[in-house]
Amino acid sequence: MIEKALSTREHAQFVDVTPLVAEAVGELALVDGAVLVFNPHTTAGLTINEGADPDVVHDMLAVLDGLVPWRAGYRHAEGNAAAHVKASLMGSSVMVPVKGGRLQLGTWQKIWFCEFDGPRRRRLWVGVADQSPGS
Amino acid sequence: MIEKALSTREHAQFVDVTPLVAEAVGELALVDGAVLVFNPHTTAGLTINEGADPDVVHDMLAVLDGLVPWRAGYRHAEGNAAAHVKASLMGSSVMVPVKGGRLQLGTWQKIWFCEFDGPRRRRLWVGVADQSPGS
Amino acid sequence: MIEKALSTREHAQFVDVTPLVAEAVGELALVDGAVLVFNPHTTAGLTINEGADPDVVHDMLAVLDGLVPWRAGYRHAEGNAAAHVKASLMGSSVMVPVKGGRLQLGTWQKIWFCEFDGPRRRRLWVGVADQSPGS
Repeated sequence: MIEKALSTREHAQFVDVTPLVAEAVGELALVDGAVLVFNPHTTAGLTINEGADPDVVHDMLAVLDGLVPWRAGYRHAEGNAAAHVKASLMGSSVMVPVKGGRLQLGTWQKIWFCEFDGPRRRRLWVGVADQSPGS
Repeated sequence: MIEKALSTREHAQFVDVTPLVAEAVGELALVDGAVLVFNPHTTAGLTINEGADPDVVHDMLAVLDGLVPWRAGYRHAEGNAAAHVKASLMGSSVMVPVKGGRLQLGTWQKIWFCEFDGPRRRRLWVGVADQSPGS
Repeated sequence: MIEKALSTREHAQFVDVTPLVAEAVGELALVDGAVLVFNPHTTAGLTINEGADPDVVHDMLAVLDGLVPWRAGYRHAEGNAAAHVKASLMGSSVMVPVKGGRLQLGTWQKIWFCEFDGPRRRRLWVGVADQSPGS
């Protein structure tokens, strides 16, 4: 696994991490297959969606806020239960095809880090499914 | 990655792509492990759920429509913001176990392509995690 | 794939299966890479989220109940349509990084089996992406 760092600037924000993941793929020996992009945090997620129009991720954040309001009588004392729920709705990882050593995404797809309790310093892990020696 | 094509016939529709994925698995060299099924579109998703009763996916579409209405003051000018949000709620890919060269799913499970802005011609990518020569 | 069994005790319940998955990883030959944790049931899901405060998964169950009520005029005659929908919102599998033969999770992360129609006897499959001989 290769670790990459990023900083989020808003309380809730989708950050395009496609360039970071592409950089990690270049550092891995993988030529053809798929990489695992894994988010080790519990108040953030990962998703793949449109990157051409920034309004798409704006709308996505707004819908998620409507479905899972920040204050709603949650028990979790830390006050960020909504961020945990949104993290699970998006998911903790994405798998991305790789061809000829490069990420292979659909025309409009970007890989988004979904910050739900920022701003914070965050990390991403990028790796292949089997890196055992001799495999 | 092997590419498979499909056509959706409704604006919103779950299509059972288990046979298409099984066909792709037969074309791959993989014997035991897991395949990545990847959807390269941003207004469609993939999920694994019950295939015995068609009412299950009907109910799922209805719940998603209730949670993410088609019209709700979205900013995205193309008018299909709801389809993008539903795509991320379902996810862009599924991993499916393979044993003896065949898909290994639970008794009631099928692989569903989730169309949220059809009807359209769509593509699916099916591949293994590491196809580098010599691996 | 290694199969592990578990029993759920409530109608809806998140069960920490991290120890079960860690046990399976010990039984697999994988040293460095990632494992697929796959749930073969259609009224249960898998997610990765905080394990330190049990209120987090309590809040998550409560939010999901609010979004997808148990009774809401569903068509599915078996009466558990809500469980199927929640299963797809969480997802049927998670990928977890492995390093030096051990699960590699973020500080607060645990792997949760999400029961939405229990109590039941359930199964989990844990495996690597490519176990073909000679790979």
